[in-house]
Amino acid sequence: MINKLVNKIKATGAPIVVGLDPMMKFIPEHIKKRAFGELGETLEGAAEAIWQYNKEIVDHIYDMIPAVKPQIAMYEQFGIPGMIAFKKTVDYCKSKDLVVIGDIKRGDIGSTSEAYAVGHLGRVAVGSNSFYGFDEDFATVNPYLGSDGVKPFIKVCREENKGLFILVKTSNPSSGEFQDRLVKTESAGDRPLYEVVGEQVAKWGEEHMGEEYSYIGAVVGATYPEMGKILRKVMPKSYILVPGYGAQGGKGSDLVHFFNEDGLGAIVNSSRGIIAAYQQEKYASYGEENFGQASRAAVEDMRKDIAEALNNR
Amino acid sequence: MINKLVNKIKATGAPIVVGLDPMMKFIPEHIKKRAFGELGETLEGAAEAIWQYNKEIVDHIYDMIPAVKPQIAMYEQFGIPGMIAFKKTVDYCKSKDLVVIGDIKRGDIGSTSEAYAVGHLGRVAVGSNSFYGFDEDFATVNPYLGSDGVKPFIKVCREENKGLFILVKTSNPSSGEFQDRLVKTESAGDRPLYEVVGEQVAKWGEEHMGEEYSYIGAVVGATYPEMGKILRKVMPKSYILVPGYGAQGGKGSDLVHFFNEDGLGAIVNSSRGIIAAYQQEKYASYGEENFGQASRAAVEDMRKDIAEALNNR
Repeated sequence: MINKLVNKIKATGAPIVVGLDPMMKFIPEHIKKRAFGELGETLEGAAEAIWQYNKEIVDHIYDMIPAVKPQIAMYEQFGIPGMIAFKKTVDYCKSKDLVVIGDIKRGDIGSTSEAYAVGHLGRVAVGSNSFYGFDEDFATVNPYLGSDGVKPFIKVCREENKGLFILVKTSNPSSGEFQDRLVKTESAGDRPLYEVVGEQVAKWGEEHMGEEYSYIGAVVGATYPEMGKILRKVMPKSYILVPGYGAQGGKGSDLVHFFNEDGLGAIVNSSRGIIAAYQQEKYASYGEENFGQASRAAVEDMRKDIAEALNNR
Repeated sequence: MINKLVNKIKATGAPIVVGLDPMMKFIPEHIKKRAFGELGETLEGAAEAIWQYNKEIVDHIYDMIPAVKPQIAMYEQFGIPGMIAFKKTVDYCKSKDLVVIGDIKRGDIGSTSEAYAVGHLGRVAVGSNSFYGFDEDFATVNPYLGSDGVKPFIKVCREENKGLFILVKTSNPSSGEFQDRLVKTESAGDRPLYEVVGEQVAKWGEEHMGEEYSYIGAVVGATYPEMGKILRKVMPKSYILVPGYGAQGGKGSDLVHFFNEDGLGAIVNSSRGIIAAYQQEKYASYGEENFGQASRAAVEDMRKDIAEALNNR
């Protein structure tokens, strides 16, 4: 799956993943009105609005981007109907040949991590049958519990030709509280925890290679470009998923450090910057009805911003 | 909700939470046969078997214990039907007046953590209505992303009278890879990361008190009793959820360090030790058909084991 992702990034010229994180305040009124008209102001109505909203965005941008990243929390908050909308979104994006990164940030131990891995990336056995539960292509994973938590995911990825992005340094303001703590290491003195985690990701990465890159990647926030620079070197074979571009404050020029010399090695996420583009002044002329076209324009602008930054480095 | 938990622990004399982590290999053949007979060897069939299995166990033990802890991964692996079984289990346990700890180990940033919090502990707004998605009483939370990830959960707990158990030191063998790393602190020299996390939990705990204890608790594995001893002192007002008893190797005598002098402050989880008791030689005489009675006997033995250990300290 990492090979497919890399090939699609090359083909589109867009190292971009669009975060399908549908908050109700992003969804145009006419979509909500229709969904609530049919199903009421219920969890089912909300889930229908989310699904219609996602579908129209995907229909407008699927040919320009390699991948989408639905954030499962935005679906899970609507209970079972929300989870059904998540699954429909995953399936629809795959039918459009998009690589689907499930932003699930799961992480547990042993058989429990295995259950998450099986549910999101692999197949669960039922008697003599087996079934895909949610069937994303990649998943994000939280490493706080150590190797026991990550290895079951890696096993399923190997079997199913899928991949991971492991949280190393997240984009949020307080990510440093624990991730930046200086820790003692045996050989290399005091170093921040995220570097220690990054080294472990690099090790897992080298052991699990696709063609050019590993299918074990990392998450490093765009909001910390200097740390990105270091982590890029620590994990040369790992793709870095970079959240925090746009709304969270990351700029195109901050991103160059996350890419290797070959122009590959990073994929930058934007969520509301794309899916709620129509709400920005810059794209307001499209109007709420044409929110899909506004998203398409925003993807094109983001592609150019990154390409320019890479050309100017 | 922490007051309810403490009062129920006092009333039952059982500082025990039963992990409803239904693996297919635990479920008696006659239940699987019936469920698969009705719905086939499908995700729906598996979910029905899980639900029937849970229900029978809960019916046999609900009067002896204060709380249950369904591990959501064990349901999530069966996709949407699995999530429906999770929700049915939560609702049924609440109807039996059990405190339900959702073992979800979620954790993300800002609005995303808020979505998880709202979905599992609070209400999500849909137009002018609001709905509970999964509606557990407590949830487990992963702190790797820092305060940004935890505060939205705390906010919902305050509004909804619910609570958290934050991962501090997990029970698995490799939990030390990151959690035990010695980190520099400003005032107190080099200390393991789990202590630093524990201090933060204590701080949150003191700011969010129930009557005797805080509704912000911690997870500390039974497999690390020495660390439990230290963390007990670091977080005097936080309830400690202690996994790792029984199947993972923790013994009654290891547990005493997790309790305060008042005999409170800890709640010990057992999952397969209770729900699959009928598969142990000790309870084999009950037979597979009477697995619920075997579970009841196992709860009683666990209660005695902990009470004796506390009496002998």
